Amino acid sequence: MDKTHAFAAGIFAAQPFTHLIGAELVAASKGQTEIAVDLRDELRQQHGFAHGGLISYLADNAITFAGGLGLGGDALTSEFKINYVRPARGARLIARATTRSVGRRQAVCTCEIYAIEDGAERLCALAQGTVVAVSG
Amino acid sequence: MDKTHAFAAGIFAAQPFTHLIGAELVAASKGQTEIAVDLRDELRQQHGFAHGGLISYLADNAITFAGGLGLGGDALTSEFKINYVRPARGARLIARATTRSVGRRQAVCTCEIYAIEDGAERLCALAQGTVVAVSG
Amino acid sequence: MDKTHAFAAGIFAAQPFTHLIGAELVAASKGQTEIAVDLRDELRQQHGFAHGGLISYLADNAITFAGGLGLGGDALTSEFKINYVRPARGARLIARATTRSVGRRQAVCTCEIYAIEDGAERLCALAQGTVVAVSG
Amino acid sequence: MDKTHAFAAGIFAAQPFTHLIGAELVAASKGQTEIAVDLRDELRQQHGFAHGGLISYLADNAITFAGGLGLGGDALTSEFKINYVRPARGARLIARATTRSVGRRQAVCTCEIYAIEDGAERLCALAQGTVVAVSG
Repeated sequence: MDKTHAFAAGIFAAQPFTHLIGAELVAASKGQTEIAVDLRDELRQQHGFAHGGLISYLADNAITFAGGLGLGGDALTSEFKINYVRPARGARLIARATTRSVGRRQAVCTCEIYAIEDGAERLCALAQGTVVAVSG
Repeated sequence: MDKTHAFAAGIFAAQPFTHLIGAELVAASKGQTEIAVDLRDELRQQHGFAHGGLISYLADNAITFAGGLGLGGDALTSEFKINYVRPARGARLIARATTRSVGRRQAVCTCEIYAIEDGAERLCALAQGTVVAVSG
Repeated sequence: MDKTHAFAAGIFAAQPFTHLIGAELVAASKGQTEIAVDLRDELRQQHGFAHGGLISYLADNAITFAGGLGLGGDALTSEFKINYVRPARGARLIARATTRSVGRRQAVCTCEIYAIEDGAERLCALAQGTVVAVSG
Repeated sequence: MDKTHAFAAGIFAAQPFTHLIGAELVAASKGQTEIAVDLRDELRQQHGFAHGGLISYLADNAITFAGGLGLGGDALTSEFKINYVRPARGARLIARATTRSVGRRQAVCTCEIYAIEDGAERLCALAQGTVVAVSG
């Protein structure tokens, strides 16, 4: 784990909601962040798929970390949009956020969320959002 | 609790993720849905505010129920967008979704999320999304 | 026309693209902006409805003015989202943007776009977006 | 020009608003669409940059064509979101939309809009949206 990943892991571990969800910070660099979660029963909706709110948590958090690391300091997500493209089932979900543009005060990130089922990744959602720097 | 609210409450109670979050379906009718949650520690992020992923869960779920009741049958949220306008702190969050347009196959809903602090409601996020009917 | 409306009208008149479209700034205050356009043939798509790009122009510009006036200075729209809820036909379109939240650096606005047909207004699109202050 | 491009070009040419803008359909296939426009003065806003409404037109239309060709029939954009990441100046704008997911009734597309200045492409906006099939 390099310095950037370790810095991000410290913040990630300080999020109580992330502990409740049971998510893991798989990777974190200036350009990319990956957050994953094993899909246990209490994360599902009424039909047995991953709840949309879980998927939106993954998108929100992956975008926050990717954008914050891109901006190089304390940051928060000001907005995002998500399209669910397929019901998410399987053993594990993984969200991969990429910083697409970094300015002085804000970064724009995209995020792909995949469900891993029988070893294969299937795209289940696409997100796009804005992360803004928090003044010191 | 009228028939529409009871129908929605049955689906809501069948969502394991909603139990994990601890959310309540406060109101549900063809035009409006309210979902609330008491803001306990495990729902927070690293600065003590409600986690963005919690707020996006409330928006996602309130939009799904408002749109699904508007469409009159089984439905799912295909996409939404959320703007966080203020850090959410206080004792309780409440999301109020309104169906703004209903077609044959899809409904468009808006949602306001408020934090209740010292008895006063403060707007902390605005969302807008699409709910699509699931064919029987 | 009061001072705020006159200030906005000066900027509006300085937009060449707005002249090409033929839009009018109907109202402008700190909280609300209205932009309208008469629906002539060259603003349509292949089925005779108003082109989505025209409607998104109205949303973009109405949000920019509402948010900029709310912020009280030079500003630009950093992002927005639009849902088209009904094909837009009729004599005239009108976009009404409302500032929903104003911070030090950014405002969040919602916008409703109506088509006026046989004297009645029909909602044809809903938008939501962020306006950021431009440093002097 | 292959059959798919020719089919798309016929619809594109039937859009009066596209003629007013002066846009060109550079490429069109099942997976990708490119729409470009030379940046003449009447497409600008008050500071001399391309107007946001022009960029949103490019995103809207490129997404509509990419999604419609992906769905294989008459289609319309039901919603999209756009982030402006840099003021757009230069000689020409080009929007490239990619179909990311195709279902029976809807396609989800992403779109990148570049400004071409001194021969170099610079990303100026990112969009994401939904295209729905229109029943015959």
